[in-house]
Amino acid sequence: MEIRRASEADFEAMWSIFHAVVATGDTYVFAPTTSRQDCHAYWFGPGMTSFVATEGLRILGMYKYRANQRDLGSHVANASFMVSPAAQGRGVGKAMGEHCLIEARKAGYVAMQFNFVVSTNTGGISLWRKLGFSIVGTLPKAFKHQQLGYVDVHVMHRFLNGG
Amino acid sequence: MEIRRASEADFEAMWSIFHAVVATGDTYVFAPTTSRQDCHAYWFGPGMTSFVATEGLRILGMYKYRANQRDLGSHVANASFMVSPAAQGRGVGKAMGEHCLIEARKAGYVAMQFNFVVSTNTGGISLWRKLGFSIVGTLPKAFKHQQLGYVDVHVMHRFLNGG
Repeated sequence: MEIRRASEADFEAMWSIFHAVVATGDTYVFAPTTSRQDCHAYWFGPGMTSFVATEGLRILGMYKYRANQRDLGSHVANASFMVSPAAQGRGVGKAMGEHCLIEARKAGYVAMQFNFVVSTNTGGISLWRKLGFSIVGTLPKAFKHQQLGYVDVHVMHRFLNGG
Repeated sequence: MEIRRASEADFEAMWSIFHAVVATGDTYVFAPTTSRQDCHAYWFGPGMTSFVATEGLRILGMYKYRANQRDLGSHVANASFMVSPAAQGRGVGKAMGEHCLIEARKAGYVAMQFNFVVSTNTGGISLWRKLGFSIVGTLPKAFKHQQLGYVDVHVMHRFLNGG
């Protein structure tokens, strides 16, 4: 597995993964009907830095980071991750998470915050805990889960200094 | 005091208030050097619903609300408030807060969330508590305060049902 900067040439594969991932309506805020254009803006819009995890020519997943807030809050990064359903269980999320922490630190960020970790996504929460994140807030019933209805959402955070 | 929808004709006065409010660098994420264009996008960008509090022809303050997240998170509103430094202490923030809760409920939102309440803004926090909000998260050192350096930021929330 290699992780490298994403380019426009990767977008077709990224759109496929995005579309498959949001189809379940249980983890990401995007509706299953999200347009290709909105997906493009999400990964390649202003201020985004996007990476893909690859194996040969195949794209296994992608992540991006950016400043979570402008100006006086711009020292904290935000990041988002998606793994292809076909590549689940192979450590792609963990590898991208570790890569992202290093990249964000190199870019000068002092902390990283996830704004919207759905509380029923126990696999995701467990991974972020292993990577040093903790829950710093819980937004009651902030996500409309396709199967479960309104469920809580966590805000997760870690500082980037000290490894 | 009257509270009504903001229009482009109000923007000059809104820009004056915005500029004065962000100059202190102690409450809002905007740098004191924020451009007029960015200010305009903040109050009149896509998805924003903005109001002004007026007294005769004078604008005392303004607020806006919008969906805090898209799609599966779009049932929660986000709102922002600014009061002219010249109109502090007259209950303008409280009046706009109450107005905003009513408007957001009418618009169909089921909750309201403030994403970035600086922890040293005790007046603001106290007002939001009086209006039924509670702190649901604390983002460590997420704000670079002009005088105090890095300080914590609160996420505040309330449901809109039940008054």
